[in-house]
Amino acid sequence: MNAYRRTLNSIRPPDHSLEPSIRAHLDDLTKPQGSLGRLEELALQYCLVQGTDRPKLGAKRVCCLAGDHGVADEGVSAFPKEVTPQMVHNMLAGGAAVNVLTRHVNAQLTIVDMGVATPMDNAPGLCRRRIRGGTDNIAVGPAMTRDEVEAALSAGIELAEAAAAEGVTMLGSGDMGIANTTPATALLAAYLGCPVEEITGRGTGIDDQRLAHKIAVIKRALEINRDSLADATDALAALGGFEIAGIAGLMLGAAAKRLPMVVDGFISTAGAAAACAICPPVREYLIFSHLSHERGHRAVVKALRARPVLELDMRLGEGTGAALAMTIVEAGVKIYNEMATFSGAAVSTKQS
Amino acid sequence: MNAYRRTLNSIRPPDHSLEPSIRAHLDDLTKPQGSLGRLEELALQYCLVQGTDRPKLGAKRVCCLAGDHGVADEGVSAFPKEVTPQMVHNMLAGGAAVNVLTRHVNAQLTIVDMGVATPMDNAPGLCRRRIRGGTDNIAVGPAMTRDEVEAALSAGIELAEAAAAEGVTMLGSGDMGIANTTPATALLAAYLGCPVEEITGRGTGIDDQRLAHKIAVIKRALEINRDSLADATDALAALGGFEIAGIAGLMLGAAAKRLPMVVDGFISTAGAAAACAICPPVREYLIFSHLSHERGHRAVVKALRARPVLELDMRLGEGTGAALAMTIVEAGVKIYNEMATFSGAAVSTKQS
Repeated sequence: MNAYRRTLNSIRPPDHSLEPSIRAHLDDLTKPQGSLGRLEELALQYCLVQGTDRPKLGAKRVCCLAGDHGVADEGVSAFPKEVTPQMVHNMLAGGAAVNVLTRHVNAQLTIVDMGVATPMDNAPGLCRRRIRGGTDNIAVGPAMTRDEVEAALSAGIELAEAAAAEGVTMLGSGDMGIANTTPATALLAAYLGCPVEEITGRGTGIDDQRLAHKIAVIKRALEINRDSLADATDALAALGGFEIAGIAGLMLGAAAKRLPMVVDGFISTAGAAAACAICPPVREYLIFSHLSHERGHRAVVKALRARPVLELDMRLGEGTGAALAMTIVEAGVKIYNEMATFSGAAVSTKQS
Repeated sequence: MNAYRRTLNSIRPPDHSLEPSIRAHLDDLTKPQGSLGRLEELALQYCLVQGTDRPKLGAKRVCCLAGDHGVADEGVSAFPKEVTPQMVHNMLAGGAAVNVLTRHVNAQLTIVDMGVATPMDNAPGLCRRRIRGGTDNIAVGPAMTRDEVEAALSAGIELAEAAAAEGVTMLGSGDMGIANTTPATALLAAYLGCPVEEITGRGTGIDDQRLAHKIAVIKRALEINRDSLADATDALAALGGFEIAGIAGLMLGAAAKRLPMVVDGFISTAGAAAACAICPPVREYLIFSHLSHERGHRAVVKALRARPVLELDMRLGEGTGAALAMTIVEAGVKIYNEMATFSGAAVSTKQS
């Protein structure tokens, strides 16, 4: 049995019976009740995910998954396809934005080849989980087979399992893949019922003409794959990408291992939509890092009943939003763990 | 000549002639142009404040200024006045929220007695800049004399000068003072012309009845001090607090020393409004850290043409918002300093 099948049965929603004791501790900290707002909410969610009122902070890790897309041949991206392996090498050399930001927040970074078109032979440090050298073009048929999507999901799950075994207590997602806003948008339309026109954006920076073309390509992909969209995993195979399926698997694995899972931006949100469609209890394990500047993200996070932690007009992916949000989540948990209490610090409480 | 008078003449707006070269470098980093959104804007502002296209990151420091307020006698706060010294002791012991968050972001923390009512004799580590043991009640007359406000402004300026001399390259503000949303709201109404009803909030958590009373008290303070409001510094003396004037001084000193200055929440925004009214070029040195959950903050940051970095529903003060935002600003500067460039990393650029 592959990791995908094995894991689906082991995911349970968090146990909310701990919530009153967690809230009581937050209210006993030396501050007006609720005055740390979302830091307190994040601490609560972190505790519930870990299943404890004494949360542990270990290592943080961002997994940046890379893959190529057959649909790039339709001319839906502003950048050429060779940028995917170039950026993977840039990340391995430490020069990409996600390197800077994971270093800044003291998070580990794992770069994963899920299916880059170019062979990544001379790439020390690369985690190799390649399914195939790029998906097929979703505008003419399914991106991948059912076996391939299960393999990609399993790879993501195993990344989460390895992280948990290695002392990681918070995971972040990230992506690299030229043209991947196209499959991500198709998936979000399929899973959430959002109109394609409203959620299709400019990705790395296409003009109006190419945007109209991209919308037409996504609609064609939804139409040609319409018979595969009833089952959540089949839909991911039809419209997804190897890195997007890997990200969905990472989220399934995080939920199974009770790891708080920080969702990066637009592409990772498509992975989150897939993971939640495949296994709804995953939703409570997810922390949406930031509202992407990519058009449509606002609508899809709303459809997922999420309120992102940050809104910094970022639209890069890679795990950059996840890295920054992780340090805010960590701040919330430290508030919970490290602040003095009213009784302990001899501070007077509110007057009745 | 006191620091206040000496400093006003030395503040110049940043030199914008560097902006094209700073933007050119940001656009050469290995990412789609502008895709890091506000991180890029923050890096640009940081460079302009430092007056360089090669910005330096040194130590970060939050200065949390404490003071008491005569207007607390009007019953405008949910917490009793003795909480001000209790919280100062809590901060000196490391147990307050601002301690946790400054530790988290690796910022220094200076706790300053600007005028706490209780003598703070047994308080090792406390920076002593006490003007007097609390202001007079603004609802019956001016909070302080002109000499006192200049002394408080000078103390803040000298805190900024000391920080610059000690290798600090980014400053954050913070406050502690029971009842201080009342003078802060009065100042914001006076400086920005915002209606009192619209910007008066619940502070640490007052009920509807006390909120109506607080609004009436603020209106009375504005009325009784109306002859002092034409001059920005006289207005600060009439309606302010020792810690609020100290915060305004910190901002004047930061601008004079070309230090990026991260403004905490509602109280610090009142200090910022005062500093900008006293010396308008200060505005470009200010980075507004977060949108406070305190009602009215949205309107006053809009009036100051500011877009806060974070929106986390926090309403605690102390410097908690400043601490968290500092790490985001630092992330932006690291992006500028540490990312690879397209030419250097052999990554293909956008297709025309």
